[in-house]
Amino acid sequence: MVLWTPATGVADHLILAGHGGSGHKLEDYIASLATGMVRHQHVAVVSIDGPVHGERLTGVTDEAQRRLEFIRAWSSDPHFTDGMVRDWQETLDAVLAMDVLAPGGHVGYWGLSMGTILGLPFVAAESRVGAAVLGLMGVTGPTKDRLLTDAVRVTVPTFFLAQWDDQLVTREEALALIDAIAATDKTLVVTPGPHAAVTPENFRRSAEFLADRLGVVG
Amino acid sequence: MVLWTPATGVADHLILAGHGGSGHKLEDYIASLATGMVRHQHVAVVSIDGPVHGERLTGVTDEAQRRLEFIRAWSSDPHFTDGMVRDWQETLDAVLAMDVLAPGGHVGYWGLSMGTILGLPFVAAESRVGAAVLGLMGVTGPTKDRLLTDAVRVTVPTFFLAQWDDQLVTREEALALIDAIAATDKTLVVTPGPHAAVTPENFRRSAEFLADRLGVVG
Repeated sequence: MVLWTPATGVADHLILAGHGGSGHKLEDYIASLATGMVRHQHVAVVSIDGPVHGERLTGVTDEAQRRLEFIRAWSSDPHFTDGMVRDWQETLDAVLAMDVLAPGGHVGYWGLSMGTILGLPFVAAESRVGAAVLGLMGVTGPTKDRLLTDAVRVTVPTFFLAQWDDQLVTREEALALIDAIAATDKTLVVTPGPHAAVTPENFRRSAEFLADRLGVVG
Repeated sequence: MVLWTPATGVADHLILAGHGGSGHKLEDYIASLATGMVRHQHVAVVSIDGPVHGERLTGVTDEAQRRLEFIRAWSSDPHFTDGMVRDWQETLDAVLAMDVLAPGGHVGYWGLSMGTILGLPFVAAESRVGAAVLGLMGVTGPTKDRLLTDAVRVTVPTFFLAQWDDQLVTREEALALIDAIAATDKTLVVTPGPHAAVTPENFRRSAEFLADRLGVVG
């Protein structure tokens, strides 16, 4: 895992950041998000590799091959989702044991695309998570039934990002997923462009949402 | 008209704010938005009554009756939209003649519901407007063809607000309108709740969007 902490003092809150398919825990946008949140929101951020990603998939440097390994695991590994839910829970246990978080600090989750495929079930299962950023995903793919079932158990404030012209997720699939999320406090933000074209402004909005909701979590 | 200006100096930008159906130019949320924007974004804000609204509909104190007058005018007055487009253009002329705006300052439009029914055609027609906040409307109502036609001429950065459970506008009607808006820089923000339940957070986001886009308008 990679852990970012504020330059001074303990963190007010902790964000778990899940990267997207064929990426890794030190992906540029994860590092950039983490650095910005640590500086501006005085939180700690922890990132881990997804299953068959990063240091868990050594020796595969080809991007297309890495994507294939992801699709294969998503399609055929019955523990793909549950394994990562457990990994996140153990990561959370480990970070909380480090005393980097201020007493009364809260935990948020941030993850788009595969970060939602694996993170939405984690948020549904883990009562210590108080707010979530999800998106670039819908009721689609090999685990779509699981996503739909778990969405009904997501009750914490949720910020959901969608891309207008997402080549991997149709608008209907995305709307079906956000509709299924049980949270009463949920915000959908949609901008034009393909899957990976999330704007810096929306990264900023998502970070502000987490900080705001964690600050007011009971 | 009502004009809010910064306490000190000339305004960096000018926002034209259009109220919703059966409201008036000094509606609580208009006054609140204006006061906040003037203070935090150092802009000037001008608000005028819509047709058959406010001081243009004297003697009608009953809310249901006021709404009926609005629907009647929207349905049967062929100049309902064009009259207000002209009113806004004359208002803009008048405010620009007052020297309240800094040299190089830009003009934005903010209007939801009837503020979009009448404001979207104004934004489409008026090249001096550099960014817009629209929403709580769709391809619906007596002037839906006009809205659809004019949406294609809206090319400035647009922030569009929709309410998940809007009792007056279906999701499909709202999505059809934002889809038709020709702007490449457009952001759709959707939150749960009925027509009039726009959150303070979304008012704030809309104000930030205008200030940001006007700041960078060429």
